[in-house]
Formats: sequence, C-alpha cells, structure tokens
Amino acid sequence: MDIPIQRGDGGSAPIYLQIADYLRAEMEAGRLRSGTRLPTIRRLASELAVNRGTVSLAYEELAARGLVTSTVGRGTFVRAPAAAEPVTPDAPGAFQPVFTAPVERLIDLENARPRYAADGDAIAFHALVPDPSLYPADAFRRALNRVLASEGAELLSYGGPQGHRGLREALAKRFAAAGMRHSADEIVLCQGASQGIALAMRLFAERGDVVAVEEPTYSNVLSAIASLGLKTAPVPMRETGLDLAALEHTLARPDVKLLYTIPTFHNPLGTSTSVEHREALLACAGRHGKPVVEDAYEMDLAYSGRALPPLAALDAAGLVVHLFSFSKSLFPGARVGSIAARGRLIDALLAMRNATDLGGALVLQAALSQFVADGDYDRHLARLRRTLRSRRDAMLAALRRHFPDGARWSEPSGGYQIWVELPEGLDSRDLLEDAQAAGVLFAPGFLFHHDGRPSRGLRLTIATADEAAIERGVAKLGERIHARLAAGPPPRRAAVPV
Amino acid sequence: MDIPIQRGDGGSAPIYLQIADYLRAEMEAGRLRSGTRLPTIRRLASELAVNRGTVSLAYEELAARGLVTSTVGRGTFVRAPAAAEPVTPDAPGAFQPVFTAPVERLIDLENARPRYAADGDAIAFHALVPDPSLYPADAFRRALNRVLASEGAELLSYGGPQGHRGLREALAKRFAAAGMRHSADEIVLCQGASQGIALAMRLFAERGDVVAVEEPTYSNVLSAIASLGLKTAPVPMRETGLDLAALEHTLARPDVKLLYTIPTFHNPLGTSTSVEHREALLACAGRHGKPVVEDAYEMDLAYSGRALPPLAALDAAGLVVHLFSFSKSLFPGARVGSIAARGRLIDALLAMRNATDLGGALVLQAALSQFVADGDYDRHLARLRRTLRSRRDAMLAALRRHFPDGARWSEPSGGYQIWVELPEGLDSRDLLEDAQAAGVLFAPGFLFHHDGRPSRGLRLTIATADEAAIERGVAKLGERIHARLAAGPPPRRAAVPV
Repeated sequence: MDIPIQRGDGGSAPIYLQIADYLRAEMEAGRLRSGTRLPTIRRLASELAVNRGTVSLAYEELAARGLVTSTVGRGTFVRAPAAAEPVTPDAPGAFQPVFTAPVERLIDLENARPRYAADGDAIAFHALVPDPSLYPADAFRRALNRVLASEGAELLSYGGPQGHRGLREALAKRFAAAGMRHSADEIVLCQGASQGIALAMRLFAERGDVVAVEEPTYSNVLSAIASLGLKTAPVPMRETGLDLAALEHTLARPDVKLLYTIPTFHNPLGTSTSVEHREALLACAGRHGKPVVEDAYEMDLAYSGRALPPLAALDAAGLVVHLFSFSKSLFPGARVGSIAARGRLIDALLAMRNATDLGGALVLQAALSQFVADGDYDRHLARLRRTLRSRRDAMLAALRRHFPDGARWSEPSGGYQIWVELPEGLDSRDLLEDAQAAGVLFAPGFLFHHDGRPSRGLRLTIATADEAAIERGVAKLGERIHARLAAGPPPRRAAVPV
Repeated sequence: MDIPIQRGDGGSAPIYLQIADYLRAEMEAGRLRSGTRLPTIRRLASELAVNRGTVSLAYEELAARGLVTSTVGRGTFVRAPAAAEPVTPDAPGAFQPVFTAPVERLIDLENARPRYAADGDAIAFHALVPDPSLYPADAFRRALNRVLASEGAELLSYGGPQGHRGLREALAKRFAAAGMRHSADEIVLCQGASQGIALAMRLFAERGDVVAVEEPTYSNVLSAIASLGLKTAPVPMRETGLDLAALEHTLARPDVKLLYTIPTFHNPLGTSTSVEHREALLACAGRHGKPVVEDAYEMDLAYSGRALPPLAALDAAGLVVHLFSFSKSLFPGARVGSIAARGRLIDALLAMRNATDLGGALVLQAALSQFVADGDYDRHLARLRRTLRSRRDAMLAALRRHFPDGARWSEPSGGYQIWVELPEGLDSRDLLEDAQAAGVLFAPGFLFHHDGRPSRGLRLTIATADEAAIERGVAKLGERIHARLAAGPPPRRAAVPV
C-alpha cells in the first residue's frame, strides 16, 4: 500500500493522521470497500518505514470514527461508513417526524405571516424594530468595555436565573418613579418581554387552558399561546380599552386562567387606558382571582411627560405580573427585559426560567446597568422621544392629507404604532399586495386577531421611516386605497389560518 | 396652602413637579386625606405666585398617577392612593396564585436541591461550571470590539431565531470534522444546550407524554421535563451505555415520544459509548420511529485525540437532534449553543424559538464567530484539555489513594465529571452533610435519578479545583467515608421528592 507521507517539517500533520486521512479518502472514493481487510500493523509499518505504534494510532483513529473494525486475531476490516450521504426527508427510510398538535398549529401560523420581500428601498411601516441608526452603539460599547475591565471574567460565567443585581436595582428605582414598589428581589431579568410573557403564562396555564386576550392583540403572543397548546378568549377593545362587561364574563369562566393586556401604547392599537379603567380592570381580575400579565414594553416611550401608572403600580393585591423591555426604548440586541411580580410568583418564575435556559447573558445585563447608571439611557430616551413625537406628528398629518373619508386612526401619545381602520368594504390584506408592489410595507390587521379573521385594520409604525419617508409612504398608501375604493368591493376573504 | 418652591437656579425640579411632589408627600403622610378638595387652580396659582398653567400641570401629573380626580365644575379631589402599601402574600385580600401542577412539581424539585452554603473556601467538586480564571476574557473582549467596529449597530438589533450566519457556518465546519454533514441552514443557535433540549422536547412531547432518559441523567433535564408536564421512562445505564434491551421495550411504548441521551462524556457518569453501541441505539430508535435528542455539550473536551463520532454523524435517517454548547468548552456567559437537525425539524425549531423568546443576542454570537475564526477557540481548547487531563489524573490518583475498598469510579477520557459509587450501605446524601461541614462539596446521586431515589453514587467535577485542591478534597472525603463505614449502616432514606 503506497501512502505518501510528509515528514518532520513541522507544518505537516502527525504521520498517524496522514495515514488515517489517506485511508479514509480511499474509502470515501470507493477504492477501499466495506469488508476489505487492511494490512496488518506490522506489515504496513514496515512498508511505510514508520513505527508500529504510528500505524496502530492510525487504525484507532479510523475505528473511533466507525470506519474500520478490529477483531483480535482476525485483523482490521473496512466497514461501510454508517452515515453515507444524509437522506433527504422524503427518501425511503427517512425519519418522518410527528410533531405535537401545538407545534403544527404554530408552523401554520408562521406560514400565514406575510412574506415581506427583502426590498431595502421599501418604506417599512410594518416593523416594530427600532432603527439601528438611532442606537447609541458607541456609548454601549464603552459601557461593555468598562464592565469587562472592572468585573472581568466572572461576567462570562452563568448569571443565574434572576440576573444582574445592579440592573435589577436600577430597574426597581425606575419603576418606583412610575409608582411601582417592587424591590430588586421582586424582579427577574428575562430575554426581552417576549420570554417573560411565555414564562408568566406557563405559571398558570397548561395545555387546553384559556388565556383572555385583547382583540386585537400582539401577534407574537398569539404564537406563544399556540405554541403552548393554550386557547384564547378574545375580549373586544373599545375606544377606552378592554370592554369591561365582556371581561367580567370572560374572567368568570373557570377555564380562563389569566389575562394578557397592554394598557399603555397598546400593540397594535397605539391607545392607552385611563387610570379609572385600570382600576376597574384590576378590581374585575381581583373579583375572579385571576392574574394579570401586563405588557409594559413601551412604558418608557411617552412622547412627553410621564406615562400613566402601570397596572403594577395600582395593584394592591399582587395580581399583576409586569413586563418591561429595553427592546423598543433602546435596542433589542441585548435581549434584556424584566418581570416584576410578588411573593410565590417570583419563586415560580425563577424555577421556570432555570428549567428553560438557565438564565441570560450576564455581561450584557451588566453593561446595561452601567449604561443606565451613566445616564446614557435617559439621554437616549430624551432624543428618541423627540424623534418619535415628530414622526407621529408627520404620520398623523400625512394620514389626514392622503387617506379617504371613512378611514379612522388612533393618535398615540407614545410608542411606535398607529392603528388605521380602512373604509367599510376594504380588507387590509388585499391592500398589502398593492402596497408591496408600490414599495410600502405594513402589518395587516388579521395578524392581530385571535382567529386571523379578515380585517379593515392595519398597523403602521414609525420605527424606521423618517418624516419625509412617512409623507411619501402614506401618500402611496392613500393612492392605493382610493384606487381600491374606485374599483368597488372585493370578494370576501376567509380567516387565516382557518 | 404653603408650598415651599425653589426657583430658577437650574438645579431644582420644574415648579409644577415641586408642587405635585409636595402634594403627594402630604397625601402619603396622611395630612391630605382621600376626599379632600384641593384649592382651585386660580387660587393656588395666586397663593404661590406662579402661572395657572403651572398648577394645572401639577394637578394633571397627580391625576396621571391616580392620586387626584377632577370633575369639571366641581374641582379636584384627593383620592385614596390605590396601591397603598403592597400587601404581603398572606395578608387578607392578597392574591393566592394557583400554579399548574407542573410548576408546583418543578418548585418541589428546586427545593429538594442541596443548598450549597456560600463558603468561598470550600472545595467545589459539585459545580459543572468552568473556572472563570481559565476564560480567555481578553481575547473575547477584543473579538467583541472588533465585530462592533466592523458590523456596528446592526448587531444590536434582533438576530432572528436562527442566529448569526457566520457562527453557524463555523459550527457546520467544525461538526463536519466530527463526521456530521449539516449545513449552516440546518443549525439553529440557542441559549446554551439547555434551551435547545427544552425546545427539542417540545416538538414531540406535550403534557402527559413520556421522554425516555438514561438512569442516571443530567439533573436539569429532569427539571425541564417536569416543567413541561412530561413524564420520564428511565432506561438503566450499563458499563457500555444504555441497556439496549430495555431501550427496545421503552421505545416501543406509544406514549414514549423521544429519547434524550448523552453518549459522550455522560453527565453524571463521565463515560462514553462505543461506535457499535451508537449504531445499535440509532437502529433501535429507527425501528420505532422515535427521535433522539443527543446532548453533545462536551464534545470538544476529549483530553487527547478526537472524540468519538456523535450520533448525528452516524444518523442516516435524520432521527437525531444534536445539541452543542460553548458553555463548558469556553464559558457559559455568551449563552450560546446550537441545535443541528434536518428537514422539517428545523422549521419547527425556528417557529418554537421565535414563539419562546424571538432569538438570542446577535452581538455575542458575532463575537464568538470572530473568536473562532481567529483561532482563539482552538488555542483555548488546547490549553483547557491539557488542564482537565492533568486534573483528571490527579483526581483518579487521589481516589485510589484515599477511597476505601468497595468504592468504584469512572475514568473519563474527556469532560469535567467523574462518577463515584460508595461502598454498599452508604448514601451520598448523608455523606454530603459531613463533607459540607469539612469544606468539600459534591453533587449527590439522587439529583440524577428520575425519582430522586437514595443513591450510593455521587458526581465529582474537576471544573474549579486544581491538582492540590483535588488531592486535599478527595483526602477529606475519604476520611469522612471511612468514618461513616466505621459507624455502621445509616437509617434508610426515602426518595426525594416523594
């Protein structure tokens, strides 16, 4: 057997590996077939003028990879490489996975989402992702370097399920300014508010149980609910917030285990409820002993003044699980949000978080803590709020200018999203097709309905488009709506997914 | 009303806030009671010599906080602050949460874990957390700065559920060297292997379904299984790996939906199975059409040579969901692991990940990608493997020196953990009490049993103790074991939790 061997110049692989790699290549090329007996160690060592130990190591390497098999007294034989080419999923013999029903439903939901073509020039009214050009990336990088210099390698170990104490203390202080009285021990850091929502729902509800949700509501929460095998009980949103009479009925149902709500800068509506409505909602939840998951993901984004007190600030009974996130008010990439709750809820959340992923990235939590302590977060918020206010003004002015009579929209006092209702007879999913062709994207209303029903509503965001783009985009949308209205009523749509 | 006001020196709060804060303090102190009518805006403005607009803003601020209520024509009245002092969980009127059964079981499991007192001098054989003093923190910080400089603020946006492409490509290449043929598209980054395990189990199993597990197995997976409302079907571990006859029976059960296994450097046993055993295991799973979740969290930690091919490299049918993690081979703080799988499994995993937390921290994934590309990861691995090998040698030598006849232990060829079985009649939970008093910690065997049964086994790790500490710690443990043996048999323990 003629195996070329490079010796000793330091740059070449160890000789045993050269032998093993050569033999492996011969097998893969089909020149050494399954069942072939390899030369004895003694013979190959002599042929190649190497130590027997070297050949022995080469054969062990091949055996470890499952490519040869050795039997004492019989020798070493080539085996068919077990993996061969991976089979394609529809080949005979391929594993046909059987997913759980919630997983199949979740995949359907994902497939029903609009495919926003990757058109970099499109005006992106669809995305609720803050604009990277507004991120204070340099200040954050400095904070990151500072904590790595001062706290060092310990920041690269596990941070535990509760997360960085300094950041929890900073959050407790900020929340206190909004009227909440949670200590750092009553706060758990999480992977953005989204993880917190899923963890909180899992405390109270399991397969077949029901979550009361606003109708419409945050589309990703509908996915989270589906993924957990839970069901929704939709409660309609009125001008003033959740319909309280309907909520009373819904929370009275024993299969309804909790309420998920967004009282401030609602997603997708952009509206906020009054203090009186909040108190009435809490009283209702209290009567039925049902916990309330409050999504306060935009609580720091009032355009001016302070936002209304969160439910968690008005909650004397300890019903509320309060979720905060840096994803919209700073950037999402740190993947840091928080869950504030009381008593046994905290123990349960910590256990759930631990069993889910053992906790988040301590180093990013520490950097955020530094960033907040240095005042960089408040400076960023001041700039961001001004920017958003001016974009909101531009959006409302453009809507008034370009949208037809019969269209209505919300006038948010904070956050990124404005909800528009098209005139009677239009479906926002039809409009999206026209709009995409014209280079304008938005989120059609059916995404926010628990049953994907056809909707006149649509969500526009002011996350990435500046004032000029807002004017241009709304003008284009207005044109398309006028054209649709002129063309007469469309065929009726079915709900998605059915 | 005599409200002290500081004017105009730039350092004081806006006057309207000074007024609002004063009134709020008066309410909190009980001097302004619920129902009290506040002065009219006109009167208070005149008393304080400020604009009416200023007083009006102050009253709006209080109204926004729910502290006053205004009625046109009647005036502004103090309301009882709704939140008052937060009630303690056992106060009357406090919310009494009703958790799901899986949550209650999870909390019980967490409570049953040993409390390792925070004794900084204790010899920490219990923890499977790599030693921070070995982390290449500076090289990682440089990688982090480099990617932030080159890729900028985009790294602070959402990274998507699949994660950084560069890192997925680097992993695909590394996995190929271990015989796997997964492309970057067949890899999903996750929050350490632990999140990947939970996501993978959720694809196939829901409440009441059963997961086949090795007995003993990784304790946190038992928690994850409990948290999902799943049950375990334990399959005994033999010297050579899972008992294949028992596995055949177990996987034949229709309620058993998947197998979770750690073929390389088993946790807690420290053992690895042969290629033949791996192929037999896959054949068995294939016969029953049951997926296999392979935890390869220490695959990069062979002390010398290459590790055995993972199941995923031998899997022609696409049965295997392969989990990798940087947590043990580098550091856990990036919270980065990966899931490699084929076909529809990837779609399902992406949908699940999205519904769970919208994905991980892109900036840390990018930094890891840079760190791997620069060769820093391989340099670190080379050092770490040498360190671990030398600690393993020290541990085995110390066990031979100090442990009594009748004790047995594994001799791992990679990773952090060594499993010890105490002589007949001893329970490792009893020993832990003695050991803690003597300043030595370890993980008692009951933690790794599906039913928490009493165990002669215990897990020792070489993660943080150096050779000298290993010798000292094992000597102390040996003394305590000899003392227990001399004292005669202990009372019989019950399983934990029952």
